[in-house]
Amino acid sequence: MPLDFSDDAVSRVNTSGRVSALDKYLMRKFLRAMDQAPIAVELWGGERLYEGKEEPEITVRIKTRKALWDLIANPELNFGDRYSDGSVEVVGDLYQALEIVGAHKTKVMSETGSMSRLRAALGRGRPRRNTLSDSRENIHHHYDLSNEFYRLWLDRDHMQYTCAYYPSDAIGIEQSQTAKLHHVCRKLQLKEGDEVIEVGCGWGGLARFMAGEYGAKVRAYNISHEQIGFARDKAKEDGLDGRVEYIEDDYRNVAGTCDVFVSLGMLEHVGLVNYPALGAVIDKCLRPDGRGLIHSIGRNRPRLMNRWTEKRIFPGAYPPALKEMAAIFEPYNLSILDVENLRLHYALTLEHWLERFEENESKVRELFDERFVRAWRLYLTGSIAAFRLGDLQLFQVVFNRGDSNNLPMTREHLYI
Amino acid sequence: MPLDFSDDAVSRVNTSGRVSALDKYLMRKFLRAMDQAPIAVELWGGERLYEGKEEPEITVRIKTRKALWDLIANPELNFGDRYSDGSVEVVGDLYQALEIVGAHKTKVMSETGSMSRLRAALGRGRPRRNTLSDSRENIHHHYDLSNEFYRLWLDRDHMQYTCAYYPSDAIGIEQSQTAKLHHVCRKLQLKEGDEVIEVGCGWGGLARFMAGEYGAKVRAYNISHEQIGFARDKAKEDGLDGRVEYIEDDYRNVAGTCDVFVSLGMLEHVGLVNYPALGAVIDKCLRPDGRGLIHSIGRNRPRLMNRWTEKRIFPGAYPPALKEMAAIFEPYNLSILDVENLRLHYALTLEHWLERFEENESKVRELFDERFVRAWRLYLTGSIAAFRLGDLQLFQVVFNRGDSNNLPMTREHLYI
Repeated sequence: MPLDFSDDAVSRVNTSGRVSALDKYLMRKFLRAMDQAPIAVELWGGERLYEGKEEPEITVRIKTRKALWDLIANPELNFGDRYSDGSVEVVGDLYQALEIVGAHKTKVMSETGSMSRLRAALGRGRPRRNTLSDSRENIHHHYDLSNEFYRLWLDRDHMQYTCAYYPSDAIGIEQSQTAKLHHVCRKLQLKEGDEVIEVGCGWGGLARFMAGEYGAKVRAYNISHEQIGFARDKAKEDGLDGRVEYIEDDYRNVAGTCDVFVSLGMLEHVGLVNYPALGAVIDKCLRPDGRGLIHSIGRNRPRLMNRWTEKRIFPGAYPPALKEMAAIFEPYNLSILDVENLRLHYALTLEHWLERFEENESKVRELFDERFVRAWRLYLTGSIAAFRLGDLQLFQVVFNRGDSNNLPMTREHLYI
Repeated sequence: MPLDFSDDAVSRVNTSGRVSALDKYLMRKFLRAMDQAPIAVELWGGERLYEGKEEPEITVRIKTRKALWDLIANPELNFGDRYSDGSVEVVGDLYQALEIVGAHKTKVMSETGSMSRLRAALGRGRPRRNTLSDSRENIHHHYDLSNEFYRLWLDRDHMQYTCAYYPSDAIGIEQSQTAKLHHVCRKLQLKEGDEVIEVGCGWGGLARFMAGEYGAKVRAYNISHEQIGFARDKAKEDGLDGRVEYIEDDYRNVAGTCDVFVSLGMLEHVGLVNYPALGAVIDKCLRPDGRGLIHSIGRNRPRLMNRWTEKRIFPGAYPPALKEMAAIFEPYNLSILDVENLRLHYALTLEHWLERFEENESKVRELFDERFVRAWRLYLTGSIAAFRLGDLQLFQVVFNRGDSNNLPMTREHLYI
């Protein structure tokens, strides 16, 4: 675990005993940065600190001095760990707490800047690399947790672990994921007999949908062993195994050609340095009049993934800015036809996921443990806040070859 | 004229007398690069060269040795000048000729590579700069040609000199430009009472449309004196002068704030180095829940404007790649919500313009001269080819502030 350095650094601090004047001073700095938001802090001695005017709606309980110093040293990384192990608790609405802190992030970071030298000494790290073997390990970390776990809270029809599409916000997760799959297929002008290559196919839902609903023939790649196993069983069960082939391999080993190239939610795991390699794969396999779509979490400007999420949830993940995504297309004269930013759709998707996760909390605890439950609650809740606050984007990018005129004149066909 | 160097260099060549073996050798190289396309060359001695198998459909007449050596030395720059002065003629369909040559451009450039050292010695140049005073001069060159000239071939209702929008390709230029204005206003969710800042407003058509059709209040900037004069007169005539203000000034001097920021076809003239300055202007004036749209000719990857077009038609122009456009938005946390590539719409628009231009050929000749008629015919025809071949793109980019949630969930409202 290359990033697991925080405990060492903080172990130099006296982590036991009574609340000191310095402890309180630091917490007050934090609270002042929040512009009198209704958040109180309760320290391990039971003492409450509060800077707001109204009755506080949220109380953050910091139960040990070690937790406090961890938060000061690297809030982005350590809040998640201390929340997960229970040495930090949030009394009140977790989403509201994360949204308030997120909206004041810049100010919090600068107000607690007295600790910036310590933070610099602790280092900031980088996302893990994504060589072929690193990728396998990183993907194993997240997606091989167990199919049973993901089945508890993803949509039942297509097991989609990517942003859904809400033509109306009154629909549920099954409908919105089906709408997403149609939206993607329409953007790709998918038609009967089209040969599709999908990279990063998850549990294979899009591939089965393309074959079953549109009559396409799909070869779908994934390096997650658990997911590929599930996908193959399901295709057989649905009688689609003649038209969908699931291949347990890396996108860099894609062979053959296709009419349609598609990837939902893989780019986050590809790593910036490999974007030209992904572009080369597309350039190699896309036929002259082929169409492509890449769907990825992104940013308005380059910035690393939240450190804790990258460490505990998604090793190696990086959400690119559009400028960075251009490195896939520009070297190969691929032409960007359409970009749609669906970030508010991801907030709705995550709300549905979180609701089911909470309904199945006790089953998740049985499968793993309390720390896992708390970590995933924080991850899902924090992601809702990130998409609502505009910290994260969701880009669907449609492209074709720069010299192909096989493109629809308008996007009206997506909506009527 | 910083780029007017070609004549000097080529004057070293013996430009008179009989066709030599070298002249013919060079032309055969050119023809071979065209893969037996039905293009013949006729040299000044009357000799015809042809490499195709079928009967040739197009004959390129090169009427002097100087013209031939100009073409070899810098085809991109000099074809236009020699076509304009009539020392190169195209017998047959000009569009077809430009499309064939455009499709073989890479091969032509490499086959005539024996002249690459001469080309290097002649230099390649850069687009002119766009300081405040350069911008005035560059814009004056193109847009102050005379309102009378542009009225001969632009749409009559809105005098739009930017890409139109074709919900159906059976409509004419008046309908397609009106459809473009609606498409832009819908993308901006324009509503009654909205305060708009437009930069680079041309003859003021969009500003009047926003005020007249949507009840917006518009301040529109332009540094073309001729255009501003026309725009003011027309607004008064239409009784819109209370709601539209035309300001003869540079986008860098924009003052005040707005709900909507819009610019159609100005970015091409802004110059890469000034993109952060444009972003700073947007950041300064866009209100927290404001929306913006930038519409610009672009590229799939960074490349200079065609040299001849940049020299004779659009001084200082540069069509950016999307990656380059990001320099406007990313430093200011502006969020890209929607990108639509409308390049085939520009090909249709240019076809309509060319048709009217040809109908009014004699009037254009009266206003200017034969060289001007030929230069503009080449420019309009060559631009159709560039958009059809995918050498040029047309990007409409919708954006808002990164922390604003005032965005429509879907784009359905654009189509129903």
